[in-house]
Amino acid sequence: MKAFWDKAQLDHAPQFFLQRGVVRRNYETPARAEALLAACAALKLEVVAPPPAGRGALLAVHPADYLDFLRDGPAEWAAMEGAGPEMVANTHPGPEMLANGARPPAAITGRLGWYTADTACPITAQTWPAALAAAAGAIAAADEVAEGRHAYALARPPGHHAYAARAGGHCYLNNAALAAERLRMRGAGRVGILDIDSHHGNGTQGIFWERDDVVFVSVHGDPNAYYPWYVGHARERGAGPGAGCNLNLPLRQGSGDAEWTVAVATGLRLIEDMGCDALVVSLGFDASAQEPLGFLSVSADGFAQAGEMVGKSGLDCAIIQEGGYNTEVIGGLLGRFLEGLEA
Amino acid sequence: MKAFWDKAQLDHAPQFFLQRGVVRRNYETPARAEALLAACAALKLEVVAPPPAGRGALLAVHPADYLDFLRDGPAEWAAMEGAGPEMVANTHPGPEMLANGARPPAAITGRLGWYTADTACPITAQTWPAALAAAAGAIAAADEVAEGRHAYALARPPGHHAYAARAGGHCYLNNAALAAERLRMRGAGRVGILDIDSHHGNGTQGIFWERDDVVFVSVHGDPNAYYPWYVGHARERGAGPGAGCNLNLPLRQGSGDAEWTVAVATGLRLIEDMGCDALVVSLGFDASAQEPLGFLSVSADGFAQAGEMVGKSGLDCAIIQEGGYNTEVIGGLLGRFLEGLEA
Repeated sequence: MKAFWDKAQLDHAPQFFLQRGVVRRNYETPARAEALLAACAALKLEVVAPPPAGRGALLAVHPADYLDFLRDGPAEWAAMEGAGPEMVANTHPGPEMLANGARPPAAITGRLGWYTADTACPITAQTWPAALAAAAGAIAAADEVAEGRHAYALARPPGHHAYAARAGGHCYLNNAALAAERLRMRGAGRVGILDIDSHHGNGTQGIFWERDDVVFVSVHGDPNAYYPWYVGHARERGAGPGAGCNLNLPLRQGSGDAEWTVAVATGLRLIEDMGCDALVVSLGFDASAQEPLGFLSVSADGFAQAGEMVGKSGLDCAIIQEGGYNTEVIGGLLGRFLEGLEA
Repeated sequence: MKAFWDKAQLDHAPQFFLQRGVVRRNYETPARAEALLAACAALKLEVVAPPPAGRGALLAVHPADYLDFLRDGPAEWAAMEGAGPEMVANTHPGPEMLANGARPPAAITGRLGWYTADTACPITAQTWPAALAAAAGAIAAADEVAEGRHAYALARPPGHHAYAARAGGHCYLNNAALAAERLRMRGAGRVGILDIDSHHGNGTQGIFWERDDVVFVSVHGDPNAYYPWYVGHARERGAGPGAGCNLNLPLRQGSGDAEWTVAVATGLRLIEDMGCDALVVSLGFDASAQEPLGFLSVSADGFAQAGEMVGKSGLDCAIIQEGGYNTEVIGGLLGRFLEGLEA
């Protein structure tokens, strides 16, 4: 199996992270990618640098103004008097502002808040090349799937919290959404996305909310008690043509293998029942019991079972890396998932 | 003239302020109130502690769940492992989440983002008593106006960035809106609000957006280049029954007395033309040329002229303190404004 990876992805090294009112060190680190890369080598995957992502492939998900902001924003920011080393938003347009006709301002400080959801997506000049390379890997993985082969994208920074025009939660470009769009473009009639990161894939949900050609399923910690807090509830089923094509399976804190694998099976069944002919897996390892911000308590065996269930679906699968922050264990969990997949 | 003030307002002393990606010391300090209080004494105003604000008076503007959050949130926050000394949100529900059926979560971390707009409104256990006391002063000032006398509320924390259910920009309860509602309750047919803080009074605009019994006028720095960034444009005129009852007069950076006083006169003319029979002034001093975050360049004479124009309107006036952060000058500017008013 090919694993797509580009060393430009290492250059994005965010520092700022505001948690419970205290600024701490960001844990979405380059070391995560190094751990996963070592695992790819140990697993004897064919590690390949993807071809550059074309503008057209990106525009399938993200509008031009947002792409330009990610690319050009850091230079505007750096030119501002008193600018810190990273772009971190201090305000955003809320619902009342949007109801009053809010528009994006000229000033970069304001545009930063317009295009971000939170303080967990610091942006520097290295962010755009890294996010672009991660996205290229996801698109290349989709191309492999279109040829009938599973593929893995070592996507870092991750993507599933990014909306079409909004970064958030360590994510800038939605790698899984880009892979799904690529599969549609390459001929898949309907694409399933199975998101088993421990956090709800809110960005992916938002992107495909009104679409019936992409079925989105997310298994995650209950948003009443866990990021992204506001969405990820079971009642969110999509709208318009997409009604019924979105399925959230939130789990209570401390859920272990039994509940988690049942939810994964439930999600896969919907994807099969809806007649999807290609699959994207948003693969996070933060459901692991060994994660620092653990909420679910899934074991390595649980990840192997999830891989096996995905394999048994018979669908060709683009596996897109999402979260997972314990660099001591994520490489091993990748191995267990892929072994299950190919069992 | 009476000046309403309660020493509980001093206990709120926010520290956190994120500006241009760097955490700095918050400048909405108790020292601001002390400077204004000294000015009140020098001006021989009758400084009075207002009666406590009744729940009903608050509910005229703010829903119960928001009031409860401000009152009870700090204890929930403090009980959370790893909580910092101040409640500062790290995420908020964006438009995509709201379109996907977002709801406020149980967890205090998530509810904090639900009820705030930005990182510039830290909340502690001292915030609610202080905001409540400031609001009580604004309501008491409105009661004075209902009796036919001008009055001043030394409102700190300020209010005009607070929406009905959202804190932001140093503001928690919207003192000016509470005063306007009190005036309506006390028999005013239509109330004008003139906001001459240098920042757009976005919260007040949002609260009265669809109302025709309150006319809101704001003179402020162009939001394309200045907080609150997204609203405050001239094209925002209100909606539904309130269409035409909202007037924004944004000014370019560096605007001095001439442009500013013309805008104030324009705003007052609308308030008079619309037949308002009572006036609330959201009085900020941050339009001063001597402000640290100066954007407009208004002199002390400019503030005296504004006071004189307000006085000549013949409307009884509740003057509600908003921003102004240079403690060396704000006391003097209050004096110049009030001298103009009573000239």
